[in-house]
Amino acid sequence: MTITHKHVDEIFEYDGSQINPSWAFQEFGIYGSSIITWIGPVNITPDNLKDFADVGLEIKSNYMANFICEFFDQQPPNMRVAYLRQRLLVMIFREILSEYGIATKREGDDIFVDERKLSISIASVSLSSAKIHFALNLEDKGTPDDVDTIGLYDIKDNNNNQIFNEDNLVDLINKTVDRFIDEIETIEKDISKTKVLL
Amino acid sequence: MTITHKHVDEIFEYDGSQINPSWAFQEFGIYGSSIITWIGPVNITPDNLKDFADVGLEIKSNYMANFICEFFDQQPPNMRVAYLRQRLLVMIFREILSEYGIATKREGDDIFVDERKLSISIASVSLSSAKIHFALNLEDKGTPDDVDTIGLYDIKDNNNNQIFNEDNLVDLINKTVDRFIDEIETIEKDISKTKVLL
Amino acid sequence: MTITHKHVDEIFEYDGSQINPSWAFQEFGIYGSSIITWIGPVNITPDNLKDFADVGLEIKSNYMANFICEFFDQQPPNMRVAYLRQRLLVMIFREILSEYGIATKREGDDIFVDERKLSISIASVSLSSAKIHFALNLEDKGTPDDVDTIGLYDIKDNNNNQIFNEDNLVDLINKTVDRFIDEIETIEKDISKTKVLL
Amino acid sequence: MTITHKHVDEIFEYDGSQINPSWAFQEFGIYGSSIITWIGPVNITPDNLKDFADVGLEIKSNYMANFICEFFDQQPPNMRVAYLRQRLLVMIFREILSEYGIATKREGDDIFVDERKLSISIASVSLSSAKIHFALNLEDKGTPDDVDTIGLYDIKDNNNNQIFNEDNLVDLINKTVDRFIDEIETIEKDISKTKVLL
Amino acid sequence: MTITHKHVDEIFEYDGSQINPSWAFQEFGIYGSSIITWIGPVNITPDNLKDFADVGLEIKSNYMANFICEFFDQQPPNMRVAYLRQRLLVMIFREILSEYGIATKREGDDIFVDERKLSISIASVSLSSAKIHFALNLEDKGTPDDVDTIGLYDIKDNNNNQIFNEDNLVDLINKTVDRFIDEIETIEKDISKTKVLL
Amino acid sequence: MTITHKHVDEIFEYDGSQINPSWAFQEFGIYGSSIITWIGPVNITPDNLKDFADVGLEIKSNYMANFICEFFDQQPPNMRVAYLRQRLLVMIFREILSEYGIATKREGDDIFVDERKLSISIASVSLSSAKIHFALNLEDKGTPDDVDTIGLYDIKDNNNNQIFNEDNLVDLINKTVDRFIDEIETIEKDISKTKVLL
Repeated sequence: MTITHKHVDEIFEYDGSQINPSWAFQEFGIYGSSIITWIGPVNITPDNLKDFADVGLEIKSNYMANFICEFFDQQPPNMRVAYLRQRLLVMIFREILSEYGIATKREGDDIFVDERKLSISIASVSLSSAKIHFALNLEDKGTPDDVDTIGLYDIKDNNNNQIFNEDNLVDLINKTVDRFIDEIETIEKDISKTKVLL
Repeated sequence: MTITHKHVDEIFEYDGSQINPSWAFQEFGIYGSSIITWIGPVNITPDNLKDFADVGLEIKSNYMANFICEFFDQQPPNMRVAYLRQRLLVMIFREILSEYGIATKREGDDIFVDERKLSISIASVSLSSAKIHFALNLEDKGTPDDVDTIGLYDIKDNNNNQIFNEDNLVDLINKTVDRFIDEIETIEKDISKTKVLL
Repeated sequence: MTITHKHVDEIFEYDGSQINPSWAFQEFGIYGSSIITWIGPVNITPDNLKDFADVGLEIKSNYMANFICEFFDQQPPNMRVAYLRQRLLVMIFREILSEYGIATKREGDDIFVDERKLSISIASVSLSSAKIHFALNLEDKGTPDDVDTIGLYDIKDNNNNQIFNEDNLVDLINKTVDRFIDEIETIEKDISKTKVLL
Repeated sequence: MTITHKHVDEIFEYDGSQINPSWAFQEFGIYGSSIITWIGPVNITPDNLKDFADVGLEIKSNYMANFICEFFDQQPPNMRVAYLRQRLLVMIFREILSEYGIATKREGDDIFVDERKLSISIASVSLSSAKIHFALNLEDKGTPDDVDTIGLYDIKDNNNNQIFNEDNLVDLINKTVDRFIDEIETIEKDISKTKVLL
Repeated sequence: MTITHKHVDEIFEYDGSQINPSWAFQEFGIYGSSIITWIGPVNITPDNLKDFADVGLEIKSNYMANFICEFFDQQPPNMRVAYLRQRLLVMIFREILSEYGIATKREGDDIFVDERKLSISIASVSLSSAKIHFALNLEDKGTPDDVDTIGLYDIKDNNNNQIFNEDNLVDLINKTVDRFIDEIETIEKDISKTKVLL
Repeated sequence: MTITHKHVDEIFEYDGSQINPSWAFQEFGIYGSSIITWIGPVNITPDNLKDFADVGLEIKSNYMANFICEFFDQQPPNMRVAYLRQRLLVMIFREILSEYGIATKREGDDIFVDERKLSISIASVSLSSAKIHFALNLEDKGTPDDVDTIGLYDIKDNNNNQIFNEDNLVDLINKTVDRFIDEIETIEKDISKTKVLL
């Protein structure tokens, strides 16, 4: 399958509407499966909340690295496939962080650094596509008061130097997307060389 | 989705085993969805018959233009999708013939010229992929005695000149495959810009 | 499967709401899969647009021959099946036109005569059914200014005589529906005599 | 959907091969979904056993009323749908027996009269269809020694008169099939008038 | 699979909104498949009607025993599975009534006692889950004027004694849920010991 | 969903037949989804090879920690779900190794330590279930000559002490299974609190 990656350079807010089906087509004219990435604030309006456990909560952060994935290959879309691919994305991102020497913890689709929450994520489906939103705080600013958060820019190496910054953030985003797309394609290749059971 | 087309230049027989799943991977190392085309005799062994209506019959022809399509996108594979795509292929081929000014008739997946049978086709699925075999007689030779057949090389234009020959057959095959792949991709594009119903 | 065809004699507008699921049941008390045909103007309200590529455009025509198909057999409904069946309908209509000696072109689900657009079509699904709208201009009137359109009544034979008119239009509609239903049923028959792959 | 019922008057053995896909087409030329009923001995060969719990056991009876159902509507076939429809058939048969005043017990797909086993049943699927075998002992003869069985002909009413016999058995079979087909069609009708959830 | 049963002791109205997906999570914090039962009036608001045949009708009763089932196992949810499981629930309830010596009739998902309507039911699906509402009148009060209804408390045994009352109603509800859950689990077990067809 | 874990204490060979559907039921009487783990040699017979890329190769090792997972929840089984869950298992195992301070690399479903291959894995489906085999060398013995392999017992910590041994291997296996089951259950919980897209 072909998955188009587009990194949008301009800053815009994730208000939750971007998870709607065919947003990539409507906004950027992109056909088929795609991953759109950008940096911007997150402030999900109550109407756009997709996690019933978050009803009444604020989901916000001043700046996040945002990933919106849309898959049209699985027809009809399947919530299990959507969440399994979400876990794949989250775990691939963790693998990449570990290559930078960054120790993290994972609980479901949440990544923690030093017990502080680094990421948010949701997956869902319409009858046309499956969508995943995954986003990483850049700084611990503008996040809900009752959650202890951390940003990518807050992470230090052993010499107390900042690891990620405005100069290498897009590289990190691109590397994550590349590996995720590669993994999904490798799975499709695996399928095409597997003998079925009888 | 990406569909690999490989036209094999050497002649080999279609004995029905080529419809088995992952044949393109096993034979040519091709991953993912593919269309393999070649020219060769057809002689389906009883074990390889997939149409229960053909049990006890001979399915054979001295030379045919063969198309073997394999699709891994639809998971789990669906017989309806397989047969709908088969019809799409057959009808696209008819559309192309009509552009050459050739009048044909169609009954299901069979194409007739002057009431003589030009083609054979079957579709089926395993749990890994959907497969279609579509083949066109080149000459009315080696076909079952009880079926009135015609070959592509037997078709004449209004001036009684042969339309297809060894020089342009591969062009015809390529054009058919290109249009078929294009149609399938256009359908996928259509899906990605369609609003679902509520 | 059983598909009920009902041709409605009275004229009414297609405003896009007829593509909603169970419209045939709500309007005509028809259970199960159905094809409703009628003649009437088309003027799709923005709310009812299902093609995101058409947002902001006018989809209208003074008079069209309308086909609304609804399929309940495929559960859960599948966008691919919906669009493949749409292509089948469009291509069958083209086959019929060619039997009248009318040369047409096809791009995806659009039919052109003399490079002028004859038809509109969309497919979509809810979780209960798949729906197809297919409609043919009768005259080149009331269609968007920026699209070069043609109507069925505008098509002439070699003697410059009009081919379709109010007297034979319903025959054309009925023939199209009959062949489409027959094709779908033949596919189901093909499935029931096909050996699966292992 | 259309389901063809054929009651075969001649006696033949159920050896388990009749559960294979497209048996109704291969044996009787029946296209599409069907229910074949007949009276005959049952003696399932080890190769044809579909219940892994029965491996090494004998599944046999001198005479049984046999039902073989095949459904092609659900694509791809789904084991849950197959077993739910099997339960529907078994429970409809129980409903009919209760109308004759016959008290029965049910455990899963087994029916008991006076704690004696009346029926056997299995469901399974291939990638083309779902199949159900359901059969009722006519007499307690030729059944495995370690199972306490009963036949339809062994059931008595309050006046100690035999309820079923050779004269009314086919009526009972037909009534069962009619109700089962009617129930499946009613479910399809229910689907076509149901609003989906959002 | 695990299905959580929660009987809610307090009385509240079924207004139709309880059939929406994840209601059990939103209202009671229950994860996964569940059956919520309670006693309360039914008065479905027009917006919440899911049966297009009921549009314009009143669906109401002063007191009913309500069952709301939600299943997340089948992904993507399938209307056929939803309605087959609904029939299973209705038929299991009938089996239980017959054990109390109560003769009933069934038409699709409706149960009648003495030709009077005892129950209402609907099934539907969203892309996350399948839902079933099944409810039994307790008394023939507050039901639509044009329907002859009966309540569980109105049913008498041969000695003209009331069978169900406030003291044993919850037992009846629990028994119904237990058997239904057990049946669904038994089907899953049957699947896991069934050999597929080839 | 409920997934049964059984660790078998006795040593037996994985010859590839254990990947067949319902093996856990046939061998251990386990109903439903399950994970069977054990320690034993691996030597896959050519007939049991499921990876067409391995045809003609030897897949063997003197001792491996074996995991055989079978899932019946997804009906009909889906190769994508099978492979996504396989990746989940492989990545969870990597996460656990990293908690022991062990650096690994991953390529698809293969884990490497010091560029030496630690694991083998395959996923496949029948129409009843999805199966995953995942196995880890204990020592670099009996593995194919042309592959540079490593065993769990060969891995050393920074003080050059062996990390895994016969005393803690089962703990490692249990921890892996516990986390994998927990992850799958968490995904199911996530589904049950997610709002669908429209």
